Amino acid sequence: MRIGIYGYGNLGKGVERAILKNKDAELVGIFTRRDPETVKSVTGASVYPASMVEEFKDKIDVMILCGGSATDLGSQSPDLVRLFHIVDSFDTHATIPEHFDDVDRVAKQSGKIGVISCGWDPGLFSLMRVYAGAVLPDGRDYTFWGKGVSQGHSDAIRRIKGVLDARQYTVPVPEALERVRNGQNPELTTRDKHTRECFVVAEEGANLAEIEKQIKEMPNYFADYDTTVHFISMQELKENHNALPHGGFVFRSGKTSENNSQMIEFRLKLDSNPEFTGSVLVAVARAVTRLTADGVCGAKTILDLPPSSLSPLSPEELRAHLL
Amino acid sequence: MRIGIYGYGNLGKGVERAILKNKDAELVGIFTRRDPETVKSVTGASVYPASMVEEFKDKIDVMILCGGSATDLGSQSPDLVRLFHIVDSFDTHATIPEHFDDVDRVAKQSGKIGVISCGWDPGLFSLMRVYAGAVLPDGRDYTFWGKGVSQGHSDAIRRIKGVLDARQYTVPVPEALERVRNGQNPELTTRDKHTRECFVVAEEGANLAEIEKQIKEMPNYFADYDTTVHFISMQELKENHNALPHGGFVFRSGKTSENNSQMIEFRLKLDSNPEFTGSVLVAVARAVTRLTADGVCGAKTILDLPPSSLSPLSPEELRAHLL
Repeated sequence: MRIGIYGYGNLGKGVERAILKNKDAELVGIFTRRDPETVKSVTGASVYPASMVEEFKDKIDVMILCGGSATDLGSQSPDLVRLFHIVDSFDTHATIPEHFDDVDRVAKQSGKIGVISCGWDPGLFSLMRVYAGAVLPDGRDYTFWGKGVSQGHSDAIRRIKGVLDARQYTVPVPEALERVRNGQNPELTTRDKHTRECFVVAEEGANLAEIEKQIKEMPNYFADYDTTVHFISMQELKENHNALPHGGFVFRSGKTSENNSQMIEFRLKLDSNPEFTGSVLVAVARAVTRLTADGVCGAKTILDLPPSSLSPLSPEELRAHLL
Repeated sequence: MRIGIYGYGNLGKGVERAILKNKDAELVGIFTRRDPETVKSVTGASVYPASMVEEFKDKIDVMILCGGSATDLGSQSPDLVRLFHIVDSFDTHATIPEHFDDVDRVAKQSGKIGVISCGWDPGLFSLMRVYAGAVLPDGRDYTFWGKGVSQGHSDAIRRIKGVLDARQYTVPVPEALERVRNGQNPELTTRDKHTRECFVVAEEGANLAEIEKQIKEMPNYFADYDTTVHFISMQELKENHNALPHGGFVFRSGKTSENNSQMIEFRLKLDSNPEFTGSVLVAVARAVTRLTADGVCGAKTILDLPPSSLSPLSPEELRAHLL
């Protein structure tokens, strides 16, 4: 399958690396809104200006969109699905239905497939919630995130006056995890489930107490959590907090009869969030190439894709070796 | 959906209980090869002789087959898919391809769907192996089973002279689990991964040392494992070993680049193996009713079914709440 990458930040690099691991995938080009001369790809793949994308209409089977949900994908996904089958990682949960409709409308006109909201949450975690909910209808879900870097929360800290850089880790509370794992079905508040740990590089002479107060009281982001703030040097940030680990847990416990409880647990422990997300997007791109063969079009999510369609193996191989 | 249960042992009862938990499912009848007068259903559902099944051709949407793989399903599944859409839990891994072909041939003639090999392994564990393998192509799988009762191994012990009854637990070795979970990608022998713990009720005056020796040296079943044998009374067996718990783990660890490892873990902890397996079969029956609307026929596995098709929720609800 001939793949294009549209948008080239951490996720774009993750997709590029994932393509190296998939023998049936070929990277045709990377498209960027920056000056391509200033963008050096990890693998030496060609970098083109975003404005040239239409010329690749017949040279790319699936375009993987690697922009952000906040400002990019809402317009880019409907726009590009005019020309290409696309896969995106739109992750603003509240507006997924609207984004789906936007992509669906254009895709049905262009005869393309647009798979939205792929990655691990939304993505693999969604799959687990759906399977587990279908199998244990009389039950309860829990999702925990981390330990991992939240880009959104790190950005929020960086916007505070006197902050040069910051990294925020979301950390599940071990006691809460254990209570869920033991099938206790606890009622958990936001504060019970996760803590937030912040590593902050401040300007020289900045009012540290004031920065810490602003972080801890920030509504939505930090106020509802037990938050710890550590001030560190830029060197320490670069040496010890340069990676983008993440992960989390999906649990569902349910009863199948009066006395019998059943527990399903799914866990991810990721050294690199963008590389893992990129790997999911490439597997989904494969599913797209399989679906197009059946003349399908419109918006889809990973919940609509037969599991076998993501695999490089044939249905016969899957039945013989993985079933 | 109108459901029939064909075969009424532990799994049949599990399906019957699962139907109670699914508001869109109705149990039309239970079919047994025994004298129906001697079979009392858990929920008071009607019990019919297996020979009457053809009369229910238009009264049942999906027949769930609850016989065993060793002697029943190989013939029952192809036989019943002449009349009904079917779901089975055929779990003899080595002959799945052959069973698939047998069901496929008849189902394509009758215009029915036959979903084979559903449950948790094969079933949910297979799904995890396929998704994880697609997302982390440069990686390695591990499957552990237990702690749980293995019916096959319990039966093997019961066939030894002097044994009245027995229960065998398969137990994953905690150190092996931890090494896998920590991403060490160890080479593990059969003995490294699982131990086997046997609780045996012997006839009065039986040669216990000889029974223990026969168990521990039994090829395929026990010889390759560290096996522990406990002799207990019939009362203790009935009081403490009457349940059928099970579960296990699927891991895949893989690299997405030189320095980044990623770990996927899926775990089941089940109080009742047959009730959980029955719950999977009912969710798959729902997927069958969705697929028939599209005119699909032939043999399928859970790997072919879109995840959304198993859920009682609509695609819109899934996107809004679970994605």
